[in-house]
Amino acid sequence: MSNIKERMQDIKVAAQKMGKAVYEDRQSPKHITPRQEYQKECSKVTTLEEAILKSGLRDGMTISFHHHFRGGDKVVNMVVEKLAAMGFKNLHLASSSLQDVHTPLIEHIRNGVITKISTSGLRGDLANEISHGLMEEPVIFRSHGGRGSAIATGDLHIDVAFLAASSCDPLGNACGYSRSEEPKSICGSLGYALPDAQYADKVVIITDDLVPYPNTPNSISERNVDFVVEVPSVGDSSKIASGAIRDTKNPRDILLAKQAAKVIINSGYFRNGFSIQTGSGGASLAAVKYIREEMLAQNIKASFALGGITAHMVKLHEEGLIERLIDVQSFDKVAAESLKNNPMHKEVSANEYASADEPGSATHYLDIVILSALEVDENFNVNVLVGSDGIIRGAIGGHPDTAADSALSIIVCPLLRGRIPCVVENVTTLITPGSTVDVVVTEYGIAVNPRRPEIAERLQKAGLNIVDIHALKNKAESIIGHAAPLPFGNKVVGVVMNRDGSVMDVIKNIEA
Amino acid sequence: MSNIKERMQDIKVAAQKMGKAVYEDRQSPKHITPRQEYQKECSKVTTLEEAILKSGLRDGMTISFHHHFRGGDKVVNMVVEKLAAMGFKNLHLASSSLQDVHTPLIEHIRNGVITKISTSGLRGDLANEISHGLMEEPVIFRSHGGRGSAIATGDLHIDVAFLAASSCDPLGNACGYSRSEEPKSICGSLGYALPDAQYADKVVIITDDLVPYPNTPNSISERNVDFVVEVPSVGDSSKIASGAIRDTKNPRDILLAKQAAKVIINSGYFRNGFSIQTGSGGASLAAVKYIREEMLAQNIKASFALGGITAHMVKLHEEGLIERLIDVQSFDKVAAESLKNNPMHKEVSANEYASADEPGSATHYLDIVILSALEVDENFNVNVLVGSDGIIRGAIGGHPDTAADSALSIIVCPLLRGRIPCVVENVTTLITPGSTVDVVVTEYGIAVNPRRPEIAERLQKAGLNIVDIHALKNKAESIIGHAAPLPFGNKVVGVVMNRDGSVMDVIKNIEA
Repeated sequence: MSNIKERMQDIKVAAQKMGKAVYEDRQSPKHITPRQEYQKECSKVTTLEEAILKSGLRDGMTISFHHHFRGGDKVVNMVVEKLAAMGFKNLHLASSSLQDVHTPLIEHIRNGVITKISTSGLRGDLANEISHGLMEEPVIFRSHGGRGSAIATGDLHIDVAFLAASSCDPLGNACGYSRSEEPKSICGSLGYALPDAQYADKVVIITDDLVPYPNTPNSISERNVDFVVEVPSVGDSSKIASGAIRDTKNPRDILLAKQAAKVIINSGYFRNGFSIQTGSGGASLAAVKYIREEMLAQNIKASFALGGITAHMVKLHEEGLIERLIDVQSFDKVAAESLKNNPMHKEVSANEYASADEPGSATHYLDIVILSALEVDENFNVNVLVGSDGIIRGAIGGHPDTAADSALSIIVCPLLRGRIPCVVENVTTLITPGSTVDVVVTEYGIAVNPRRPEIAERLQKAGLNIVDIHALKNKAESIIGHAAPLPFGNKVVGVVMNRDGSVMDVIKNIEA
Repeated sequence: MSNIKERMQDIKVAAQKMGKAVYEDRQSPKHITPRQEYQKECSKVTTLEEAILKSGLRDGMTISFHHHFRGGDKVVNMVVEKLAAMGFKNLHLASSSLQDVHTPLIEHIRNGVITKISTSGLRGDLANEISHGLMEEPVIFRSHGGRGSAIATGDLHIDVAFLAASSCDPLGNACGYSRSEEPKSICGSLGYALPDAQYADKVVIITDDLVPYPNTPNSISERNVDFVVEVPSVGDSSKIASGAIRDTKNPRDILLAKQAAKVIINSGYFRNGFSIQTGSGGASLAAVKYIREEMLAQNIKASFALGGITAHMVKLHEEGLIERLIDVQSFDKVAAESLKNNPMHKEVSANEYASADEPGSATHYLDIVILSALEVDENFNVNVLVGSDGIIRGAIGGHPDTAADSALSIIVCPLLRGRIPCVVENVTTLITPGSTVDVVVTEYGIAVNPRRPEIAERLQKAGLNIVDIHALKNKAESIIGHAAPLPFGNKVVGVVMNRDGSVMDVIKNIEA
């Protein structure tokens, strides 16, 4: 034993050598309040207005949101309305996607509150107005993987992220579900919000269920959160299965689903340990049902299902047919509940899901993806964003990411939707390059990209109706006739970024 | 429909405005190998030597390790031996802690391979040699929270981290357990490795179970991993409960445990929703048993148990007595298995656990911590690092972090260990400042820090034997006599950093 004072000279020398201070506060106060109360004392909870003021947000900066509540989202409108009331102008709104419900943004664009938008998609009135030239700056469209990459590289720098959460503690541990007895909302995975949480300068969690610390397991860590705002509701969970997602009873979709399942089963990739993602289209969801039957028959198990996880996939996982679920977005409440309760149902960020820059991102290990399309052209290029009327009505989503990285990408698409041809000479807007698309399934036959002759051979051997993509396009034309060119104007209203950060296409204003 | 070539001019203009390239590669090759094979093609798996060469490690740089295998760790010795064979010199070894098993480092220090060490603790021959002046540079000792902070702020910059994992896929998704049928090892939480994984320039995962992608749920994400190295064994899991951790049958420890439990129960903090951490000492572990009985009797439930999680805590959680487990380090195999299987048993990083810089870190929400000590002095200062013979024989761990941040810190410590007094005039080395220590429980009575009169009052009312700390020190002296000063030399062999990054004490070489 020796008095520390006798060592003080040595302590000072050691500190000096290291360029450090000498520890001084030997009587620092302890916080002795019981912690149920203490968490209130040092909580990050504040009002939305205070959070905005303290965040340092200024005119011209970039704000971000996620779209995990899809058509039920309430946070984008709530925050932008507050920002408008506070007098902000010239903001860049960077959301992982935007939906029909975001129609109020039109007024905020007209008033100069929002002057730039980055998103995966646009729908409804907002999309219609923007297609007709509402904004001066073109909307920047990115895929989900592309957005994750752009945020990680700093290409898309976020000043303040406003992230909806279905539960959050006063310190900021947040997730897309709640363990409260009567949760107000649930959206499941916060995968598209995780890059924002990690890279934004300031992060505001908006929650409708402020729970006591610790809100574990959490999806966003308090380490990344600056402010927590409690509101009555962040979203209508009954609408998370809205937007593009629908279960089909349409006989044509069921026919397409059966064909897609046959393609998968005979593709050469249908074997033990395969991995699969299905898009949100009705036919691609329905295909899972037929694949399941064959998995049971052939005793084949999948290693993982990826992407937007649905109740269908959860069922297969629970039956032991799919070992793991990797969830960047829960497509329905069953999936969201499964994510909450099942350790083998893993939440991943957009970067872990589909970044092109990261060799470990999950899409690189995807065998099979089933995707939908608005249009496919004779070069297998796909458009999922702009309608055949030239109006934006969709979202890029993970379409180009999964098509590019998967071993087998299957587009399921009717030849005709009413009087609208879906196999065309040139897609209205290029979203997914044809070089990454392998098979197109229509009700008039299955076209295989000439770059994949081995697939065509396998499907032919299995007795499937393999047709030339040109024949499909000609068939559509023979039924409907040659479509007149769309009345595009000269204003660029949208820019489509490839997932590698290059500019792939532009969308012009529509004049009709 | 319109040909993209007609839009090329607009695409070029848009790209130019944004300072971006125009997307060109419209025929990029697809990787069409089934993914079970493809993961091999683009895997990060390599040999240890290749990983070291590719990491860019150079003489003088900092390498890091975690100590989750405690006495069973095989990775530190393996890697340093390889580095020595490859001719590296003058390296800074920054481990979250070091154990008896690391005796081989002595030779590598003598040979100039390792010339600097940062750690939480030292034990065994290595500690003995260092205490006697083996190294020219003093060892830098930090608490677990202090190390997390130092890594996050860049104060401790790690060039290459070598992190043991009980399973890892070829892309680097790693964890401290394995879902293989016959796992080779398990250590549970990788909490102390997570700052390294996040902040090190290069990260090498060393695993004894290379599993197919995706190794979810994972603790370290492939995003943070550069290389994966497969070895026959990373650690002997039977020894994770070794080092400081022991279940006691010692009657004195049981007496101390019962007293500590009584302190807790009567402290005013024992109420619904309380939070608790127990250190690794036998008495503090045993105290859990008595607290449990009282929780059942009074129908009190805890909100969370924190820190090194033990089988005792898992049992209470499974009984519904503790809502959540927050695990920075699994202290035994039962805890490690629970972490693997139970979503409410959450792994956290050292920063989320105990960073002083982060108001959300868990220690800030800790009501009660029970800790052990080598020495406590009359100012309530605690030493857990240096023996009363002046030789280093312990680890700082989370001791000062939890003492400072908890509402009630209880030190359980016998007055005498054989002929060694544990309540002394001045601690040999200052690890935990007395201003953060509230209660000292000995077999001769309970001393309460005069700064906490309300606690003393409550315990007195409950009939506990409250004594003055000076009386305890005098009692020890009256039995053993006044100890002679230790034969310290003039060389500084260790520097103790406070968790705020300042220098708190130095350890001199011992000459006996």
